[in-house]
Amino acid sequence: MPLTDLTLPELVDFRPQVPEPADFDAFWAQTLAESAAIPPRLERRRIEGPITQVIVEDVEFAGYAGDPIKAWIIRPLDERPRPAVVEFIGYNGGRGLPAEHLHWAAAGYVNVIMDTRGQGSGWGGGGSTSDPHGSGAALDGYMTRGIEDPHDYFYRRVFVDAVRLVEAVQTLEFVDPQQVAITGGSQGGGITLAVAGLVGSRVAGVMPDVPFLCHFRRAVSLTPSRPFTEVTQYLSIHRGSTEQVFTTLSYFDGANFARRATAPALFSVGLMDDIVLPSTVFAAYNGYGSSDREIAVYEFNGHEGGQFYHWQRQEAWLAARR
Amino acid sequence: MPLTDLTLPELVDFRPQVPEPADFDAFWAQTLAESAAIPPRLERRRIEGPITQVIVEDVEFAGYAGDPIKAWIIRPLDERPRPAVVEFIGYNGGRGLPAEHLHWAAAGYVNVIMDTRGQGSGWGGGGSTSDPHGSGAALDGYMTRGIEDPHDYFYRRVFVDAVRLVEAVQTLEFVDPQQVAITGGSQGGGITLAVAGLVGSRVAGVMPDVPFLCHFRRAVSLTPSRPFTEVTQYLSIHRGSTEQVFTTLSYFDGANFARRATAPALFSVGLMDDIVLPSTVFAAYNGYGSSDREIAVYEFNGHEGGQFYHWQRQEAWLAARR
Amino acid sequence: MPLTDLTLPELVDFRPQVPEPADFDAFWAQTLAESAAIPPRLERRRIEGPITQVIVEDVEFAGYAGDPIKAWIIRPLDERPRPAVVEFIGYNGGRGLPAEHLHWAAAGYVNVIMDTRGQGSGWGGGGSTSDPHGSGAALDGYMTRGIEDPHDYFYRRVFVDAVRLVEAVQTLEFVDPQQVAITGGSQGGGITLAVAGLVGSRVAGVMPDVPFLCHFRRAVSLTPSRPFTEVTQYLSIHRGSTEQVFTTLSYFDGANFARRATAPALFSVGLMDDIVLPSTVFAAYNGYGSSDREIAVYEFNGHEGGQFYHWQRQEAWLAARR
Amino acid sequence: MPLTDLTLPELVDFRPQVPEPADFDAFWAQTLAESAAIPPRLERRRIEGPITQVIVEDVEFAGYAGDPIKAWIIRPLDERPRPAVVEFIGYNGGRGLPAEHLHWAAAGYVNVIMDTRGQGSGWGGGGSTSDPHGSGAALDGYMTRGIEDPHDYFYRRVFVDAVRLVEAVQTLEFVDPQQVAITGGSQGGGITLAVAGLVGSRVAGVMPDVPFLCHFRRAVSLTPSRPFTEVTQYLSIHRGSTEQVFTTLSYFDGANFARRATAPALFSVGLMDDIVLPSTVFAAYNGYGSSDREIAVYEFNGHEGGQFYHWQRQEAWLAARR
Amino acid sequence: MPLTDLTLPELVDFRPQVPEPADFDAFWAQTLAESAAIPPRLERRRIEGPITQVIVEDVEFAGYAGDPIKAWIIRPLDERPRPAVVEFIGYNGGRGLPAEHLHWAAAGYVNVIMDTRGQGSGWGGGGSTSDPHGSGAALDGYMTRGIEDPHDYFYRRVFVDAVRLVEAVQTLEFVDPQQVAITGGSQGGGITLAVAGLVGSRVAGVMPDVPFLCHFRRAVSLTPSRPFTEVTQYLSIHRGSTEQVFTTLSYFDGANFARRATAPALFSVGLMDDIVLPSTVFAAYNGYGSSDREIAVYEFNGHEGGQFYHWQRQEAWLAARR
Amino acid sequence: MPLTDLTLPELVDFRPQVPEPADFDAFWAQTLAESAAIPPRLERRRIEGPITQVIVEDVEFAGYAGDPIKAWIIRPLDERPRPAVVEFIGYNGGRGLPAEHLHWAAAGYVNVIMDTRGQGSGWGGGGSTSDPHGSGAALDGYMTRGIEDPHDYFYRRVFVDAVRLVEAVQTLEFVDPQQVAITGGSQGGGITLAVAGLVGSRVAGVMPDVPFLCHFRRAVSLTPSRPFTEVTQYLSIHRGSTEQVFTTLSYFDGANFARRATAPALFSVGLMDDIVLPSTVFAAYNGYGSSDREIAVYEFNGHEGGQFYHWQRQEAWLAARR
Repeated sequence: MPLTDLTLPELVDFRPQVPEPADFDAFWAQTLAESAAIPPRLERRRIEGPITQVIVEDVEFAGYAGDPIKAWIIRPLDERPRPAVVEFIGYNGGRGLPAEHLHWAAAGYVNVIMDTRGQGSGWGGGGSTSDPHGSGAALDGYMTRGIEDPHDYFYRRVFVDAVRLVEAVQTLEFVDPQQVAITGGSQGGGITLAVAGLVGSRVAGVMPDVPFLCHFRRAVSLTPSRPFTEVTQYLSIHRGSTEQVFTTLSYFDGANFARRATAPALFSVGLMDDIVLPSTVFAAYNGYGSSDREIAVYEFNGHEGGQFYHWQRQEAWLAARR
Repeated sequence: MPLTDLTLPELVDFRPQVPEPADFDAFWAQTLAESAAIPPRLERRRIEGPITQVIVEDVEFAGYAGDPIKAWIIRPLDERPRPAVVEFIGYNGGRGLPAEHLHWAAAGYVNVIMDTRGQGSGWGGGGSTSDPHGSGAALDGYMTRGIEDPHDYFYRRVFVDAVRLVEAVQTLEFVDPQQVAITGGSQGGGITLAVAGLVGSRVAGVMPDVPFLCHFRRAVSLTPSRPFTEVTQYLSIHRGSTEQVFTTLSYFDGANFARRATAPALFSVGLMDDIVLPSTVFAAYNGYGSSDREIAVYEFNGHEGGQFYHWQRQEAWLAARR
Repeated sequence: MPLTDLTLPELVDFRPQVPEPADFDAFWAQTLAESAAIPPRLERRRIEGPITQVIVEDVEFAGYAGDPIKAWIIRPLDERPRPAVVEFIGYNGGRGLPAEHLHWAAAGYVNVIMDTRGQGSGWGGGGSTSDPHGSGAALDGYMTRGIEDPHDYFYRRVFVDAVRLVEAVQTLEFVDPQQVAITGGSQGGGITLAVAGLVGSRVAGVMPDVPFLCHFRRAVSLTPSRPFTEVTQYLSIHRGSTEQVFTTLSYFDGANFARRATAPALFSVGLMDDIVLPSTVFAAYNGYGSSDREIAVYEFNGHEGGQFYHWQRQEAWLAARR
Repeated sequence: MPLTDLTLPELVDFRPQVPEPADFDAFWAQTLAESAAIPPRLERRRIEGPITQVIVEDVEFAGYAGDPIKAWIIRPLDERPRPAVVEFIGYNGGRGLPAEHLHWAAAGYVNVIMDTRGQGSGWGGGGSTSDPHGSGAALDGYMTRGIEDPHDYFYRRVFVDAVRLVEAVQTLEFVDPQQVAITGGSQGGGITLAVAGLVGSRVAGVMPDVPFLCHFRRAVSLTPSRPFTEVTQYLSIHRGSTEQVFTTLSYFDGANFARRATAPALFSVGLMDDIVLPSTVFAAYNGYGSSDREIAVYEFNGHEGGQFYHWQRQEAWLAARR
Repeated sequence: MPLTDLTLPELVDFRPQVPEPADFDAFWAQTLAESAAIPPRLERRRIEGPITQVIVEDVEFAGYAGDPIKAWIIRPLDERPRPAVVEFIGYNGGRGLPAEHLHWAAAGYVNVIMDTRGQGSGWGGGGSTSDPHGSGAALDGYMTRGIEDPHDYFYRRVFVDAVRLVEAVQTLEFVDPQQVAITGGSQGGGITLAVAGLVGSRVAGVMPDVPFLCHFRRAVSLTPSRPFTEVTQYLSIHRGSTEQVFTTLSYFDGANFARRATAPALFSVGLMDDIVLPSTVFAAYNGYGSSDREIAVYEFNGHEGGQFYHWQRQEAWLAARR
Repeated sequence: MPLTDLTLPELVDFRPQVPEPADFDAFWAQTLAESAAIPPRLERRRIEGPITQVIVEDVEFAGYAGDPIKAWIIRPLDERPRPAVVEFIGYNGGRGLPAEHLHWAAAGYVNVIMDTRGQGSGWGGGGSTSDPHGSGAALDGYMTRGIEDPHDYFYRRVFVDAVRLVEAVQTLEFVDPQQVAITGGSQGGGITLAVAGLVGSRVAGVMPDVPFLCHFRRAVSLTPSRPFTEVTQYLSIHRGSTEQVFTTLSYFDGANFARRATAPALFSVGLMDDIVLPSTVFAAYNGYGSSDREIAVYEFNGHEGGQFYHWQRQEAWLAARR
């Protein structure tokens, strides 16, 4: 796979106009206000499984509309307050099995892994969270569910789940609420950006890896691989819906959230990524709301980005800020 | 594409044991009883569009749980009672545009085309019917939505929509209720078999083309192409769900519906079909509940089957029974 | 499939120099003069098939060199003069079955569908017209048959067939000769442009959809998919024939015919088309010989373009001109 | 690529019933009689090109209907009578350039390479022989040209070309007419079998490599790759032509020619061949008309078979018979 | 991906004759004797990296010919003797980064991960062990290096590395030498079987996952995907080497090692595996040298097999034996 | 396959800065000095095989470190001094069988074909030369063997083999030492450039066809197909090695060798080549060290370039200089 997008010098200067609806802030303020009316809930159950050197807890919390959302908490064998890392999962994956998520806890962090509603059947150890809300005529996949109206759009529910989880984590006694970072790869990176834009400096670090869901217009026009192409295919059938679809998506564009974020950030990007084009990552990165930001550029990687090599950099970046 | 399955002589003799749950009939009796409690509704609106030589009506009717379901009625330019053909659509398609469905009306039939809830964005002219019911963790696609419980399974809602539409069509003044046939290709053929098994001789003819959704266990094990592989992939992740998944699917297996059908039937099958393996079609055909049945074998065709060549045979088959 | 070519603003300004031989007009004048020496012949036979709400006629007419060419006429159930739409078929297809072509007749038009000589075996309902003329060493496919000399080139025969059919249709008593439009998708669009350039304002409307056969040099260099690549492959073998091949093709380039056309035109193009690159369509459109022209841009579609969605636009465009 | 067909023990025993028309011999007797009425012609022109250590001659001879067919003669630098090898070319190839054909001459043979009419543009150095006869509606490719009638079928012309060339070669003063062998790979192997069946012991050796064009019914049903699939695709469109097509093909089936052959034979086959399934080769080999036959089995090769490794075996086989 | 091989009932009964050279035991006895002459060496260096809740040690040990081989030891935070799991890596991978290997240590085991010489550049976190021995003309890949002589074959060196590592691990003070199990997926499973056959009951458990390198003749003939196809391709070029190649491979066939193994075993297999065909796994499993064996069958999985779901089963299986 | 790189006008002007290490000349001077310390050896054995009209000799010579390297000499049937062409082979191929290499000898040249150490198992008639030197952790393939240090890099050994062969050929009594040209396609073209840069005007002509191994940085970033992508994949795993890898490669870059070459040159390039991008060829060509150079541009060819058509041009170019 060769370079899939602009050259690195071009990317560094890439500052496109990503459309933003006039009522973007109002839309999300109302969404979060509705959410705030639903009481928080986070229940933990210790897993007595094979894993003994760290604590594993099966979590259920009240997400959007109070819907029950699953998560894992995996953390060192004591109860003293520690920094936490809340992680969101890539497209079509689920929270998986605990054994897939040991590195943050092994490094001394409280790690919280959120299941993605409705997904969790495409790869990895699977998920087990329903999305009890239906949708209009949609393409298979999640990208077009409710895409004809921002209030109905699938990611409105997911982003609210994520914000509510971050808030709940900050109330746990074994978490240092000043040291809560958020991260995730691909879709998880897109959710990370959304939370970063919605909660501002309430999080201590923002680490989106190869973040999906940015600069939709460019992505939908130029990306060769799924899942952005779900939108492309939808528009190839619903030829009259183009403007409405991009209006809906503008409420969910990571570039618009990035502009509102204020916490320090460590991004990553793969220049040979054909699933999330590098220019869409830089569209968010170059406009990110804090100058305390950096980006790890993996010149010869695709969508896998830096994998554990990058995790080592993430951990060092967090450690340097403690 | 070479032959994808057994040879024709083997297919003719292929009579597998397709698992059937003990409460199959009870399950569907209860489902239909619940449905019967919801009042029928079918509203028609004449389309004054480019088409002038036949009548086009935009339809909305009350489907499963009373959900609004779209359809087209396309019919000759008079109101005298005519034979009708109710048609169900293939996977991921929608009712499309009226101009895609002129052949039955041009041949003198009332043609009713049901939109498939939630679908209608993958090919053709699109659809516009929501599926307002959510689901558990599912793979992208429709095959695994609600697959952990037959009551929640996507096709329970679709099959009820279809039965209710057939019943409503039989009350239309311009339809001869003794001359209502049902048809559809692929998923539409699977729906056709389900309706055939649920309404028995209330329909005059059953014409499933390359019907999908039959003999799930074999299909999920041997089919190389989507959408049966959605179930395969789901089971590759949810490794502990195999028995529950096949139990759910056994309530929806076209082979089980076929056994209960009593109306005359004209099937079709393509021996080079890699989406619906011919053996799964013959699993339904060979056990079909009426000896007044025939099957058009398209030896060198894939999933496209006989297309309009077969339509001419369908029309002749119906005409011969009038 | 992402964008396959220039951006829309670039396409709007794309006005390449397409080579035109000095004797282009002489070549075609002589070709049509030779054709004129052959007496017209168009025989119709009413089909008593399943279709009863419109008239279907099986047609054979004398094409290039008097060769017998098949066609369908499908039209409303009366004999009063109506507007007509003559349609040419995409590469490798044939006139198919009447049931595939009901929309124009259902909208009140006389629809004439020309079979393409020698083709008709690749998709759809097939064709049944021979091309009784052999060729030099050619690649499989039709693009390189006779490509070493414009007099021998396959499309010389096809374009003459098309012109002769349009002329014959204008003599039919149930056709309003002032209201004959021409159309076709892909290769059919290329034939449409050729006829438009050869008959000028004798046609009332020109509707090429995603027209093939334009700006050969660019197309042969940049198109990734068949059938332009037949020429590419031919040149990869016949390395010394490049100049002769492009000289031959310049007599058949849709951009050169478009410059000579004078009737109003409605084009269409798909910006994600990898079979007919959008720039080759705009090469013809931007130089089209009448300012009464428009183009429907399908931003997220490939070679399928606008399908029946676009047909509705075509019908409205024609209706507005009646 | 794994094994594509039966196992070797199964192949050794594979003796299918390949349909043979009752008038097979009459058809070919008449065809050859018509051919015999056309005077032979073979003109040679010495090429003064880069090659100096062997003689290269550009040949044109009168083939079917007297059509001019190209060939090369490449031979040692003297005029004394030598054994000759007449070679036919694989599908879509041409006689190419002389430098591609030096091995037989370098080994002391007169090598004659026949161009295949109409082909010669798909690979290699190209060809330059026209096929001046048109065809009915055919798929791109040569397999379906004239397939609705054995008299019109493309290979009737090719097989006659080949027989006429062998006969002409036997009259050349620098050829030992008792030592003329025939060979070719793939299509060239199919032509070899046809000539072997038509001329009997007039040739001294028959060496078909991975021969194409045998046991059409099985090949068309089971072969995954072109060009047998051209027939498959034709039948998928022309659904009513199946019987006529296989009747036509039965006049050209290598298995039927093999049964009539009497000269010693050396076949080859690749067990991982997905273009010519091994069982179709064994269908011809097992029924070959002489017990003086052997077959080189290349267990881990695809359609490339034994290449020059096999050529060494061929040469040794011929040498042993001199 | 559908089933890639025999059905499960057929697999359970599949007991092929895998060729075994007469001097198999002598060959390996001599190989191990030569190895025993080289003094053991295993150096550990504690990694002070991000991981703090378990111990990570960078290991180098003396493998075949004393060559330096890398490994990781990852283990709980104390020094008391614990059960150990020695793990071998899949084809083309390396020992990667420590964070990729935390699950066994998190469950209380000493985990030792051996780098594979020469590999470690194809996927995952990479490797860093040279293979300082050259090879004859080989295909790219490792499967054919030295394949013309069992003494030179790549896996001779790798299997000796593995045996030497297991022996060295049993001398570590924090390892219970009676509780050393071996495991690995794919190539790692093949190495596991080799060690099991070579060290017998010196290991406490043998857990090969989807083991590669079994029943070479069948695998090379039927497997569609790399890396078995490296051998296929080699034989397609070196047509005269077939017998020597399979003779060499017979010294390395996991089925031959399995027959000699005596420790309890837990295998796994995926029935949709197209890289390691299930029948080759059963060829080893059904002949395994201990009746204390079981196999986890993942019916709908490919080469990924059971992943962490299966790891849970492995851990429980080991725990039940402690 | 469309154009894969810049347009021809852009290529003609493409003069990139290809990095060159300061000690490039010192590195190679030392390498050749070490080589010079090893006595030359070239042994010939006449092959009494099927080929009788030219002489075939099986050659073994002392290459890098005195390693035995195979070659063929194929030449006219006399011993008088003739011009010679030394040929190097493409990636993964070997010297093959003599019958594959008859054209130069047939045209009166002494042709010497060098086997490539370690390769010779991927295509063609195979090779039989070992590379007795191991490597560090490398990807399958040859591109990354020893890539962490220029002294260890695979091509250091290959280039020395090539220089030593050219020197040895010039001492043969039947070779005119003033008339030794070098050539090769793809990897063979890269070796040709290296030799041209290392031996200067000691060769009479340099004919690299579609030469591989030029402008590594661009090639590794933009080439979609193997084998440049082996380096890309290596860097995707060994994320910290980028600078070292490109430093190593700069000692082997054909563009750096081309700058030092002084003999007349005839290059070739295919503008649709996706294995060796045209810009990397022009990077070498435009900077080539002699103004007596030309390049054959095959506009519609991929990596096959001009094949025997180009060979005719090569021979004429050489002949014109004699």
